[in-house]
Amino acid sequence: MESFIEVPLDSDFPLENLPWGVFEAPGPAGPQVHVGVALGQHVISATELQLCSIVVPVPVHTRVQGRLNEFMAAGRPAWRAARSTLQRLLNASEGELRDNSELMSRVVHKQADVTMLLPAQIGDYTDFYASRQHATRVGSMFRGPANALNPNWLHLPVGYHGRSSSVVPSGAPVRRPSSAVSSSSPPPRPVVAPSTQVDFELEVAAFIGPGNTLGEAIPVESAWEHVFGLVLMNDWSARDIQKWEYVPLGPFCGKNWATQISPWVVTSEALEPFKCRPPAKQAGDPDVLPYLQEAMPYTYDVNLAVDITPPGVDRATTVTRSNLKHLYWSFAQMIAHHTVGGCNLRPGDLLGSGTISGDEADSSGCLLELTHASRDEIVTEASTGVVRRRYLEDGDVVTLRGWCGGDGVPCRRIGFGRCSGELLPCQP
Amino acid sequence: MESFIEVPLDSDFPLENLPWGVFEAPGPAGPQVHVGVALGQHVISATELQLCSIVVPVPVHTRVQGRLNEFMAAGRPAWRAARSTLQRLLNASEGELRDNSELMSRVVHKQADVTMLLPAQIGDYTDFYASRQHATRVGSMFRGPANALNPNWLHLPVGYHGRSSSVVPSGAPVRRPSSAVSSSSPPPRPVVAPSTQVDFELEVAAFIGPGNTLGEAIPVESAWEHVFGLVLMNDWSARDIQKWEYVPLGPFCGKNWATQISPWVVTSEALEPFKCRPPAKQAGDPDVLPYLQEAMPYTYDVNLAVDITPPGVDRATTVTRSNLKHLYWSFAQMIAHHTVGGCNLRPGDLLGSGTISGDEADSSGCLLELTHASRDEIVTEASTGVVRRRYLEDGDVVTLRGWCGGDGVPCRRIGFGRCSGELLPCQP
Repeated sequence: MESFIEVPLDSDFPLENLPWGVFEAPGPAGPQVHVGVALGQHVISATELQLCSIVVPVPVHTRVQGRLNEFMAAGRPAWRAARSTLQRLLNASEGELRDNSELMSRVVHKQADVTMLLPAQIGDYTDFYASRQHATRVGSMFRGPANALNPNWLHLPVGYHGRSSSVVPSGAPVRRPSSAVSSSSPPPRPVVAPSTQVDFELEVAAFIGPGNTLGEAIPVESAWEHVFGLVLMNDWSARDIQKWEYVPLGPFCGKNWATQISPWVVTSEALEPFKCRPPAKQAGDPDVLPYLQEAMPYTYDVNLAVDITPPGVDRATTVTRSNLKHLYWSFAQMIAHHTVGGCNLRPGDLLGSGTISGDEADSSGCLLELTHASRDEIVTEASTGVVRRRYLEDGDVVTLRGWCGGDGVPCRRIGFGRCSGELLPCQP
Repeated sequence: MESFIEVPLDSDFPLENLPWGVFEAPGPAGPQVHVGVALGQHVISATELQLCSIVVPVPVHTRVQGRLNEFMAAGRPAWRAARSTLQRLLNASEGELRDNSELMSRVVHKQADVTMLLPAQIGDYTDFYASRQHATRVGSMFRGPANALNPNWLHLPVGYHGRSSSVVPSGAPVRRPSSAVSSSSPPPRPVVAPSTQVDFELEVAAFIGPGNTLGEAIPVESAWEHVFGLVLMNDWSARDIQKWEYVPLGPFCGKNWATQISPWVVTSEALEPFKCRPPAKQAGDPDVLPYLQEAMPYTYDVNLAVDITPPGVDRATTVTRSNLKHLYWSFAQMIAHHTVGGCNLRPGDLLGSGTISGDEADSSGCLLELTHASRDEIVTEASTGVVRRRYLEDGDVVTLRGWCGGDGVPCRRIGFGRCSGELLPCQP
């Protein structure tokens, strides 16, 4: 499948991908907000195609409001129809857009010329804790290997309600928080201080498409139909703040200062060739309760990596690699559990996976694990010398990457782009 | 201050109150959504006053969108101007509205003829745990009196992010949830079952007016300026679900099936005569950190009560009485803590106080406390006989009431109306 718009071979965004996003582009009367898709190094404005009466079946409110919520709500038939129309319009053999230079100038922009915004108005953001490797390693550090997993962990996908106001797109700077922290030895002597334990968390998050009515659960068997698509997510965390505050009601100021997502939502249609089975059960694992059992469970094979670019350094260093397929709980199970008691999800809601760690110690999805709660350093080579980190330092740029295929599988690389943010010093 | 619209002496809504709300009223072309205020047994449509070019300075988007967010964002000068305009227009001595029967018919509706909606689009809902009496009694039950308060409790207002999608207005039915629960004896044997421990929580919640920018804290000294007004809140809770799920990330399915609020937002201006000092410190209490210290701390003297009307019974029985003034942490302190690390609040966000319990055991704000985790029964007399409860039963109607004054203080009763909901049986 080739487009008349050039797509570099190693691009995250071939015509088979077409992830959806919201962006601000220059216009004749100043910057304008569009919804559209990515293709190679360009973006395609579905808003402009609609204004030119080329029927891309994106609900009309979308272009007015500069958000994808209404399109997300429209469900899979509408998503497929829009994808199919765009793949036809952008195909190398199709002249309708290609041969209309005035239309091309309105519809096609370089990615370098636009500013990416959040894809949706996020009504509620929920974060789970779905990686067994992550929960086991963190639990071992604090409670020893025998009690690593809490009694509920293998029975339900543990999650908590996060803060939607502080979800920001890739590129937004992130500021080191200052809050109450405490010495761990009794009696507690809290002080207000800049966090000295700022960490990243490597996550994938699902944008909800159609929602459900309050009081009615979503069965696990149809739960994937409620997923519009996936993004990368860095759940920036301040471990020292979190540790002092989190008993008994969970994370609060340790997490609510920034959660960062990649701006392009990769759809279930684009991910279809990369479906795979979830991890096998281990001996002694309990059967999950019926509301979490799927006849044909699946997840997606998405390679993940985190890079750090220290201040003054011109090259990123990869500090960990993982994969979405390692998760013990799938997004379908998270959705079924979220709604089992009647909680309503709404189009545009965001569900994070929690830190995604792999089987090896060096495939952990956060510094807390990689450094064993700062007992060890991670040491990486950069062009300007050796970089050592226990936690993040001011000026560090943290970049998450995610991609499927590109290595001989039956389809071109389907990438997520980047989720990237610089850690600014604490507000003076 | 008298209006030409009759206000019964015991009304919650005299001309000194004028709480704001959003309601649907019959119109010539079908039901229409209005913003407006309550007066006695009537509602006054600010939307219609604007449409008739009577300048009530409510930002214009409000009437289009049927929500108060933009008005909340406008800040205290705009709130005061609107209040002053409405108090003049509605005054017994003022003819502009009174003598215009066509205008009257559009602007004034009976409360019985309108349906109350949520006052705002709630971007994020946060719930705190700010009552010392509640935290102490609940902590004593589970950890004994010596360890009742967690080490952080006296140092910061503990809170967590709640679920905004399941916030519903008074009058909405509430459905008993079914979710995973477990026997407490090891090994855990979870089952999915209807909760048998459904409880109410008597709370007051603040609607945020102007917000703050991500990364910039709100100082405690100006925090009250960010409060548009207060409502009553019933944080419906399923104790058995909560108990099994909440370690380590806090409440989730135990709480996210319904949180109910009273629909009229009582403003800081109306509450002004009922300002009072917060509770005195106890011997040995630590000084709070500087970011939580106010030069002149205050709260409001708001009487609170919870009534239960069992199914088939025609009369409500009051099961507990408390007061907002008992809270250890004020809303100003909750706001300062919420934002200290840079978290942004947005206009229309909702901050709950947590269960508000008084000093006496029978002034506890939830059944968990009143029945000592169902060890005892509460026994109340009703017209049809004696009612006994450990937790709530299907068909119970729970009604929260709140009011200031009305007993000789220098102003008429300023009431909150009701927050009322019926517990429906679990979805079959």
